[in-house]
Order: sequence, then structure tokens, then C-alpha cells
Amino acid sequence: MKYLVTGGAGFVGSTIVDRLVAQGHEVIAYDNLSTGNLKFLEQSKEHITFIKADLLDMPALTQAMRGVDFVFHMAANADIKDNLKNPTICLEQNTIATSNVLEAMRANNVKRIAFASTGSVYGEPDKFPTPETYTFPIQTSMYAASKLACEGLLQAYATGYGFQVFIFRFVSLMGERYTHGCVFDFSKKLLANAHELPILGNGKQRKSYLYIQDCMDALFIAIEKSSGNINIYNLGTEEYIEVNTIADMVCRELHLPNVKYIYSGGERGWVGDSPFILLDITKMKSLGWKPKLSIAQSVHKTIHWINENQWVLKERK
Amino acid sequence: MKYLVTGGAGFVGSTIVDRLVAQGHEVIAYDNLSTGNLKFLEQSKEHITFIKADLLDMPALTQAMRGVDFVFHMAANADIKDNLKNPTICLEQNTIATSNVLEAMRANNVKRIAFASTGSVYGEPDKFPTPETYTFPIQTSMYAASKLACEGLLQAYATGYGFQVFIFRFVSLMGERYTHGCVFDFSKKLLANAHELPILGNGKQRKSYLYIQDCMDALFIAIEKSSGNINIYNLGTEEYIEVNTIADMVCRELHLPNVKYIYSGGERGWVGDSPFILLDITKMKSLGWKPKLSIAQSVHKTIHWINENQWVLKERK
Repeated sequence: MKYLVTGGAGFVGSTIVDRLVAQGHEVIAYDNLSTGNLKFLEQSKEHITFIKADLLDMPALTQAMRGVDFVFHMAANADIKDNLKNPTICLEQNTIATSNVLEAMRANNVKRIAFASTGSVYGEPDKFPTPETYTFPIQTSMYAASKLACEGLLQAYATGYGFQVFIFRFVSLMGERYTHGCVFDFSKKLLANAHELPILGNGKQRKSYLYIQDCMDALFIAIEKSSGNINIYNLGTEEYIEVNTIADMVCRELHLPNVKYIYSGGERGWVGDSPFILLDITKMKSLGWKPKLSIAQSVHKTIHWINENQWVLKERK
Repeated sequence: MKYLVTGGAGFVGSTIVDRLVAQGHEVIAYDNLSTGNLKFLEQSKEHITFIKADLLDMPALTQAMRGVDFVFHMAANADIKDNLKNPTICLEQNTIATSNVLEAMRANNVKRIAFASTGSVYGEPDKFPTPETYTFPIQTSMYAASKLACEGLLQAYATGYGFQVFIFRFVSLMGERYTHGCVFDFSKKLLANAHELPILGNGKQRKSYLYIQDCMDALFIAIEKSSGNINIYNLGTEEYIEVNTIADMVCRELHLPNVKYIYSGGERGWVGDSPFILLDITKMKSLGWKPKLSIAQSVHKTIHWINENQWVLKERK
């Protein structure tokens, strides 16, 4: 089969590319390299077609989609903390970009797509773990609002044009090639200043994480085993971890026993930050999947990988 | 106070303009006249500022927003049936247009907005009447998907920038200046051919309608009595009506006793049509509002108005 992976040089996208190549498929990695990195495609580069282009470039996207059987749409602006500085970025890079992907598919009669949504579409739920069928959500960030808009578009294309769509509501992912989030930020800050660690919020936020390879297993199992037109799955683990605990783990891994934590204060790290995320993964587990790594294990692997690949700390802002 | 009404020359927008003028407010009606009509502003035109411009024209919109206290954002592409012919129209005219309205507000420090959403954001619910807190919805049309995207944007602006937002999920509205929907279509078809009436679907679709002046009462009561940042209300009546019954009423009103109904067949009139819409209006009623007219009365008033104003049948496709 021929696959197109948007964000194909990113953390999640490049890991999908590697899996598809290992399965012997034809793969197009599509990425504008705004946050993706060609180093992540080192191991697959001989076997794939890489297209450096933006999802807002409709002619390039439509051309790239020719003959494709299945799309993994992983490209996104995921810079949640800074959304309020420029609130239209998520509209453009997530919502409009997704509309473009769907239109390019339609123009080429491509009808199957897996989409990286987010557990933050649930806003600040009052039910934990939060199931896929949770009450009508209220959005608390531009990022989640833009992802919810994408979900709606995918569903409308499924109803209107017979697309088969897979919507995965991820918690934060960790592991090899991770370049974004609090383990990354903490590592970067501590390598610059080994005495103090600024922490956004009060450090008591409870977060969920999933190891990237567990996420990969889930994606491929769900796609293989789902036959409906519209398939929605939460992806996470059954645990959560406090931000303070993550800070402790990063300090321990970097052998820094005496770091002083400086809190910015408040229940949330930034406007729209969720004080608690824990998704109900019963539906995904009913397909025979479960995460192999605990959060602690995936945090550990992540810190280890960052420490061994400190170039990522320099390349990313 | 100074109000800006988008879609100010449309069915709903112009009726809001009239109310605001009657209350002595300063009013800007903003409309690109794509489906709006200056005839609807006849009675208010001496008292308002009319701006003919598009919501995609950001400089015009930002300029128009200067000094405004409150925005009624009623402009939309509501041509639901034909969405699949050009699926990006709703993205542009609803989602992107709404982002523009919010950005123009932010640029001018305007923080209060009422938005016309739709009961169709619930998709095809399995609970009737459907409450505002219904389960996480699945979208079945480009139109509803675009309105859901707008709701998310409004909520994110409320959380991120302290906006106060009012989201009204309308059923279909009827009454004076109604120019879109099945009473309109039936009237138009029967005035062209008094013998046969083509009906989309099997005619058994159960629909909800609300009289425009009852809708106006609800909007102003909700805005007056709600103090939260994010306020979401279903607006409808507690009844529904079959499409066949509406057809019968139009025939009776036009004195056409022997019309043959020609059904296109199927439970839905078009892809994405809802076989049943009935919204739970308990929340709105708790503010002391209730609809004064039954659906039958509002259909009657609507047919009467169309019959007296047949120019609308000629001007609208």
C-alpha cells in the first residue's frame, strides 16, 4: 500500500514512517520542516519519498496525494503554551491545513485517514478517566479548539463522501525523538542552569503520558480492527504523574540532587493548561491493546534519549 | 450601547437590528448582501450605520468594530443542502469568518459576543429532547462541523482573553423575513407548479421550528440574565412537526387542495439531514422565557408573509 504521512519528519510522523517502511509499504513523508527534522528520517530515507512542502500549499499537497491509499495526518502546530500570542496559527496550521488534506484526498479519491487529535478536546472534564463519549465539551485553548474543528471536518467527510476516518485523542507522547513538552523543557533548563528549575504552575498538575512505541502499536491495531466509517479512540495509559515527580526524575537522571524549584504558581501552567488529564482507554483496550511501558518508564527512556541527543535541545527553541 | 450585527441585512440579523434600534442603541449592520437584503433594513435604515463588506475583509471588519460594545454574529453560510458541492465554503464563511470577527474584536478590545450556532451540532443524537450537555457529538454535515468549530473558537477566546460569549443553538427559525428552508422551498415550488410538490426524503422527518420574535425574546433575556463567561443555550420549542404536515399547511394556505407529493425517498432529505430534531429548552426556560407561538402558528405566519412578499421567492435561488 502507498501511505502519505504529514508531519513525516516529526516526532510521531517519522516513527510512523519507520513502521510503514518496516512493513514494506511505499511511503511519502510530507513535512515543511518547521519543527520536523530530517535526522529523524535517517533510518528510512533510502526507502521513502520525502516532500518538503507546507500543507497550505494546495497544489503541492494535491500532487503529493496522487495514488495514495491511506493518510496519516500528524502535522500540527502543537505549541499550546504560546497560542494566545497568535491565536490564528492553530486555525491555519491545524484546521485549514486539515481541510486542505481532506480536499487533496477528495481530489485524488483517497478515502482513509488517521488523525492525531488530542485529549485536551475534553477541556476540563469532571469525569476521570474521561471516556470518548464524555459530555459535549467546552474548549479551553486555541489548540484544542482547532483540533476539535478538525475532528468535525473528518466526521463530515466520512458522512458526506464515504471517507473512513480514525481520530486518535492522544495524551502527551514521550520517547525517542520527543522534542516538545515538560521533560524537554526541564532538561533544557537544567542543562543551562543546574541550580534552579522554573516550573509553570504549582507543579501539582496531574498529566498522562504514553510511550511512542505503545502509541504506534495502538494506531496500527485500531486501523486494522475497526470497520466503521468514524472511529474515535482515546490513547493513553491508566495512570497519571505529577509535574513535580517529572521534575524529580529529570533531576535524578541528570545527577542533579540539589535543584531548587521555582514555581510560577496557580493550578495551571498557562491559560488553557489542564490541571488533570486521564483518559479512559477501555475502548482501545477492547481491541487487545495495552501500553507496555508505565509513565515512569517512558519518562525515564525520554530523559535518557534527550541526554544522548542533546542536539535537539539546541535546534528547538 | 453600540452594537455591531454581522449578517445585519439577513433574516435574523435585521430583526435584531430592529430590536436594538427600538431600544435606542447605536447599531452597525454589517453585511456583504450575498443573501441579506436591504429591504429588511427599511424600517431601521435612518437610525443605523450600514456597512456593505465581507467578513473575510479584515481591514473593513477591524475598522467597523471600533468603539463597539457588543457583537451579534449572525452572518453565515447556511446553505446546508449544497455543502457537499463545495465543502470549503462553510470553513471560509463560517469558521474563518468567525475567527476574523473574534480577531477584529480583540484588536478593538470588544469582549462580548452572541453567536448563532445550530442544533445540528448534536449530529444525530439518540436522546430527545437533546440537552446542551449531550454526549460528545459526531458531526454529520460541513455546516454543523463549521459551527462547532466556531463554538470552540468562542470558548477559547473566553478562556484565553476574558471574552463573554453567548452561544445559541437554534432550531430552524420561521416568521417575517424568512427566506431559507422548507416552507420557503415548498411555497416557491407550488407557486411554479400547483399540481406536484417534490419533497426531499420520505416527508416523515421530524423538525423543530421557532418563531423569529420568540427567538429575539430569548436572545435578549439570555444576554441580560447570564453572568458566566461561556453561556450556551438551546433555542427551540417543545414540539416538532413532520415535513409532510408542513407541506399540507403550505398547500392549504395557498388554497391548493390536490397537490401530489413526489418523494425523493429515504429517511433524510439530503446527506447530513437530520431525521429528527428536538432540543431540550429547559435551561432557557429557567430564565423565565418560553415561546409564545406554536410551530403551527409560526408556520402559518411564515406562509402568510411569503405569500404577501413574493418578491423574496424571485430574489433567492
